[in-house]
Order: sequence, then structure tokens, then C-alpha cells
Amino acid sequence: MGLIVQKFGGTSVADIDRIRNVARRVAGTYRRGDDLVVIVSAMAGVTDGLIGLARKVNDTPDKRELDALLATGEQTTATLLAMTLTSMNIPARSLMGFQVEVRTDHCFGNARIQDIRVDRVRRLLQERTVAVVAGFQGCDAEGNITTLGRGGSDTSAVAIAAALKADACEIYTDVTGVFTADPNVVPKARKIDRICFEEMLEMASIGAKVLQIRSVEFAMKYNVPVHVRSSFSDEEGTMVVQEDNGMERVVVSAVTMNKNDARITLRKVPDTPGIAARIFTPVAAAGICVDMIIQNTRASGKTDLTFTVPKGDYQTALAIGRTVGGEIGAEDVFGDDTIAKVSVTGVGMRSHPGVAARMFACLAREGINIQMISTSEIRISCLIEQKYAELAVQALHTEFGLDAS
Amino acid sequence: MGLIVQKFGGTSVADIDRIRNVARRVAGTYRRGDDLVVIVSAMAGVTDGLIGLARKVNDTPDKRELDALLATGEQTTATLLAMTLTSMNIPARSLMGFQVEVRTDHCFGNARIQDIRVDRVRRLLQERTVAVVAGFQGCDAEGNITTLGRGGSDTSAVAIAAALKADACEIYTDVTGVFTADPNVVPKARKIDRICFEEMLEMASIGAKVLQIRSVEFAMKYNVPVHVRSSFSDEEGTMVVQEDNGMERVVVSAVTMNKNDARITLRKVPDTPGIAARIFTPVAAAGICVDMIIQNTRASGKTDLTFTVPKGDYQTALAIGRTVGGEIGAEDVFGDDTIAKVSVTGVGMRSHPGVAARMFACLAREGINIQMISTSEIRISCLIEQKYAELAVQALHTEFGLDAS
Repeated sequence: MGLIVQKFGGTSVADIDRIRNVARRVAGTYRRGDDLVVIVSAMAGVTDGLIGLARKVNDTPDKRELDALLATGEQTTATLLAMTLTSMNIPARSLMGFQVEVRTDHCFGNARIQDIRVDRVRRLLQERTVAVVAGFQGCDAEGNITTLGRGGSDTSAVAIAAALKADACEIYTDVTGVFTADPNVVPKARKIDRICFEEMLEMASIGAKVLQIRSVEFAMKYNVPVHVRSSFSDEEGTMVVQEDNGMERVVVSAVTMNKNDARITLRKVPDTPGIAARIFTPVAAAGICVDMIIQNTRASGKTDLTFTVPKGDYQTALAIGRTVGGEIGAEDVFGDDTIAKVSVTGVGMRSHPGVAARMFACLAREGINIQMISTSEIRISCLIEQKYAELAVQALHTEFGLDAS
Repeated sequence: MGLIVQKFGGTSVADIDRIRNVARRVAGTYRRGDDLVVIVSAMAGVTDGLIGLARKVNDTPDKRELDALLATGEQTTATLLAMTLTSMNIPARSLMGFQVEVRTDHCFGNARIQDIRVDRVRRLLQERTVAVVAGFQGCDAEGNITTLGRGGSDTSAVAIAAALKADACEIYTDVTGVFTADPNVVPKARKIDRICFEEMLEMASIGAKVLQIRSVEFAMKYNVPVHVRSSFSDEEGTMVVQEDNGMERVVVSAVTMNKNDARITLRKVPDTPGIAARIFTPVAAAGICVDMIIQNTRASGKTDLTFTVPKGDYQTALAIGRTVGGEIGAEDVFGDDTIAKVSVTGVGMRSHPGVAARMFACLAREGINIQMISTSEIRISCLIEQKYAELAVQALHTEFGLDAS
């Protein structure tokens, strides 16, 4: 008998039939004798529908009000699942963010969890009642409704699991787990049985959409083992856990790609202190997250500066680049939004030198030019032309021995 | 400069265009310098849609969960109106029932307001911010979301106006006010300029759908003048106020009818103590509200007992009547669901004897048989055959001098 947290994403609760399917799974766990907290997302499409409604009012709707509007999505799923469970004679109660309560900061649209007071959840569990929690939402110290950002229900689940010291946190989604590469791109991609938090974090931060980054940070910080699995099958998924010696010691665990960035270059800017700050201060002020930055020094006392931003911010960032470029005397400012970032990730590369060289050689053999490179302790990313993205992923998947036999 | 509470019903906020229309009206009041609390219903059709969704899960969904589900309807409207107002540079904040807070009892689906802590609303008003309150909802002492029953947003509005000691409470709806009769039935019906709480209460309780009964009780108890008017025009509506000497002294203010009841008769039951209790105890236990009751004593020591119930409960009540009738030796038990109740209402009848006689004579002239009669101090109701309902209302409207000239 354990305490299990189960989280079901939007496609898993997309309609009443699927909610019934989820209820049957929850009922199975409950009848086994486990205590159970279930976290749900909005039904697939609902959040986008609500955003569309808000945009009819205003292109940039008030953030506080938007959060209170979006929160209805998860509220709807939580109540429907709770009433489905009670109609199956499984005692269940829905709890919204303010009822749990999931206390966050005031940052509407992207609030961070500060504290979770799980007293009410605990009382329900003591009565052998399933707590069905609306994910993605919380409330700030003034009682305003906040939301945790896209994919925030993952974070709700892991944070509640941490607060309850749950025995397991299961994230049910529409894929069977975490793969060595996107199976749509690499037919020979394999499901990973166990992956450590650090690798999952790197993969989430470079575009693998399985888990929200912040949920992995939470899981790592509080050492909550997360089981990513499909709500449409009983197949075991991927365990995301603390690194241990028993873990398969592969050099590279996964190959990923991301086509969501664009590149901006300022050519021949003066190579003097303060220039980078001149450029990136207004970019940051515009709320744009810069990913990669490269500065190449030229002999002439000039330097080329290149950086990448999300595609949605490309035009804004380019305009800022041109303004600042004019002020500081850049020779030219230009951009490119037909780029892709391919990455290899693996804790094994800490103890295996030469992974970068092997990656570059592999890409070279395929005739793919590398535009930018960035690395972390357990990841190497290369920016390339977008049209080569799939080819690069396939070649690297084979190079690092990940292909299924 | 006053403190105004404005409530907008479902048809007034049915879509984004109508919400904009409401926002313009609110903005006008705000710019005049008034402090403003706006209460909104769910967009027309939304509540029924949510009930339909819940019924897909279960015919009798868990009441606590249904309330939390239905509450999303008003939450959606409140946030959309608040963001519309902020986009027009009118400071506005949405507040849900738990945020106001509207404290109720635990009776899910039909909760009664126990207390309203308007501190948060007052703080917003002090900052010259419009408080947009989700109507129809509250929360109980444990923080569970509750709803106030059909039309509950009227009650939210009046109760909040009472708690704030507002200068006015305006109920915006899709009709221009309270009429002497349904204009669809009586083309010569006139809008009533002023009506007192007692009359409005009688009219609400016999099926006039303009205001929820409980909202009128609240208005009367706390003496909150209510202005019922249309959100689609600037025309003055009907003032619902405390009775005063300046009020038009008509004998009858309005004629109404109601086709929602059915009649059940138990013939020749023993005329002994306890018989009525034998019948009405199981009816009450089934949650059925009995309206009219008549008992006619016969010479033989037997009595006929007739009562009316809502049409939706007709079959259940008839079955109970037949069971009990068999036990107590009734000669026959039968019912009729093709009946109507026509009523005349007016505080003037307190001081004018003979109103009942005039009503009966008028119906007799039209050849309409009266099946049952019930009266209050300011109302007389007659049960008749349903097919005569419109004729009866028209004849009584003329008889009591209500026709527009």
C-alpha cells in the first residue's frame, strides 16, 4: 500500500469517454489499496479555445484575468473526473489550486510554486477518498488565481508528490515514454527504460516536450522518481530517477532537435567592453529569452556577434538588433529563421572524452555545416540549416549506437 | 457619486459583442464617478451545456462536483468582462465567490447565503477599481464551491448590494421591466413603474421569471431598492421598492399564469386525524414541493383531498398517491397535468374587499370553471383547465383596468 500521484494530460482526458478510461485506471489503483492523488490538465484544445476567446477581447488580455479564465479548464476536468469516480462508487473530491492549496508568487501566466499546504489532501487520503486536483493552477498570497505556464500540470504533479512524500509520481501522456529520438524522425528510436534527472532536464530544455522543465527541476530537487507512461496502454514507460551506478552507462542517451529558434547576427561591431550589454539589455527588456550566443573576434578590432531567440520573437529581436547595430556602428545586421538545433545528451559523456569530436565528424560526413555550437557538461548542441535537421538526427542516432536492433 | 451594483444576466453577456456592450455601459457609469460592483451570470446556454456534460457522466452527478463545474460558467464571464474593461482603460478585477467572499451553507445546488465579507470588494472600490463578481456562486465554511440555484445571480447581486449598503441595485435583463401581464399573452400589458417587494415576491413565487424569489426576499429584508431594466436600451425599467404612500394605489398590479403544475386527487379517503400526514410525509420525503392543497369534507365521513405539484414530479407524486391511497382505502386516485394557475396580485386588495368575487365572476362570464382556489393577503390564484389560461389572463387584465389605453 503506497501513496501514488498520477497525472493525466490533455489528450488523456480529451472527452467523456477518455475521462471514463482514466477513471477506470484510477479505480484499479485505488482498489489495490493505494492512496491516490490525481492531477488533471484541461481537456485537449480547451486551453487554446479559452486563449482564443480572450484574444477576441484583446490581443494582450490582462494577465491576472487570463489566468482566472484558463483555470476553468482544469476545474472542468477535475470535477468531471471526480463525478465519474463517485458514480463508480470510488469516493473522490475535486480540489482547485486555491483549495489544495498551491501557493505561488504573483507572476501571472508563469507563476512559481512557493509552498504547498497539503493538509486538505491528507485529510481526504485519511478518509480513503481520491483527491482529484486541478493541475496548472495555484493562488498567490492575496488569493488571486495564478497559472504555472504551459505544461504546468506536470509541475503541479511533481510538486504535490514532493510535498506528500509520495512513493511514486506517474505522468500519463499520449506517448509510451521518453525515446532516444523522436520516433517520427528516427524509426529506429528506442524507448529509454531509465533516465536520470540531469539528462531529462537537458532534454526538456532543448525541446523534448514530454515533461515541463520546471517539473524535472522539482523532481530532481526533491528526488521524486517520475514514471512517464501512456494512458492508453499498460506498458511500462520511462523512469526518471536520480543517477545511480546501476544505470546503463551509455555515452549518449538521446538525440533531439528543435526548429523553434531563429538566429540574428551583428557583423563587425567594435570589440570594446559594454557592447554585449548594449545589445542584450534591450532584448531582455522586451522579454525575449536568448538561447545561444557566439562572439567571433576579428583581427581588425571588430567582432561578429550572433545569438538565437525563439522564432515568435524573431522580428522583434531583429528590429532591436538593427536599432542597436546602427547606434554602435555595426557593418550589417541580418537574421535567419530557417535553422535547427540538434543535440546529443548523456551523463556518460562526463567520463567519455571525444563525444564532441565524434558529433562534428559525423555531421561533416553528411556534408552538414555547423553554424554555432553550445555545450553543457552532459549535452552538445549544434546549430545547422533547418533542411538538414532530420538527416542530422538520424546520422547521430546511428553514430552513437542508439538504433534499435 | 454613489455606490452602484449592476447585475447582467445570461442573454446580456451571451457573446463577446454583448460583453463589450455591457462593458460600455459599465464604463459610462464609472466615468460618471460612481463606484461600481458588477455581478455577471454565465453566458446564455453555458450552464445548460455544463449540465449536459455532467449528465453524460451520470444522470445524477455528484452535487458538490456539479457546483464546482457550474461555477466555471460565471468565472468565464467575470474574467472576460474584467479584461474587456481593462482593455478600455477602466481598472477592473474579477472576483469569484470564494474571493469576495460569499459564504453559504453546505446545500450544494441550492445553497443559501449566510454572510458576505466584502472587505476585498471595498478595497477595490477604494482604489477606484470596478469589482466584477461571478454571480450564482459562493463557498461554504470548508472552502467548497457552492451555487445558489437557478437565477442565483440575482440573489448574489442583491445580497452584495445589501452587504455594501449600495445606493442602488440594477438588474439588467432581456426585458424592459416587470409587466402587468406577459406581453406575449396580453398585447395591452403595461410596464409597471414601481412595485413593492411584497407584490414582486408573490409574482416571483407564482412563476414570473424576472427575479429569483430569494433575491426579492433579500431585497425586502435589507430594504435594497432594485431597478429591473433592459441591457439593450436606456429606457427606465421597474423599481422594486418598499411600499410607501406615494405608490399608485391600484387594486391589482398584475395578472400572471403558470402552466408548470399538475393536480392529484384522492377521492373518498377517511376523514380522520392523521390522514393528511400519511399522504404528504412520503411526498415531502421524495423532495417534492406541494403547492396548493384542498380538502372537501363529504357527509359520509369521507373527504376528497386534492393537491398540486410541479409537472416534473407528477408521475412520482401520482405513484405515491396511489400507494398511500390503497393503504388508507381511498375510492380512487387520479391526476391531471393539463391545468394552469392564474393569479391576480396587488397590495391594494388589502383595503379593497370583493376582489376575489370580481375575479370569480369574470372567469364565470368567460365560461371558465375554477378547480381550486388559494389566496394570500395580496394574491388570489385559481386553478383552471390549461386551454383557458390565456383567455383567463386577458379577461382579468381587462377586468382590473390594467389594459394600456
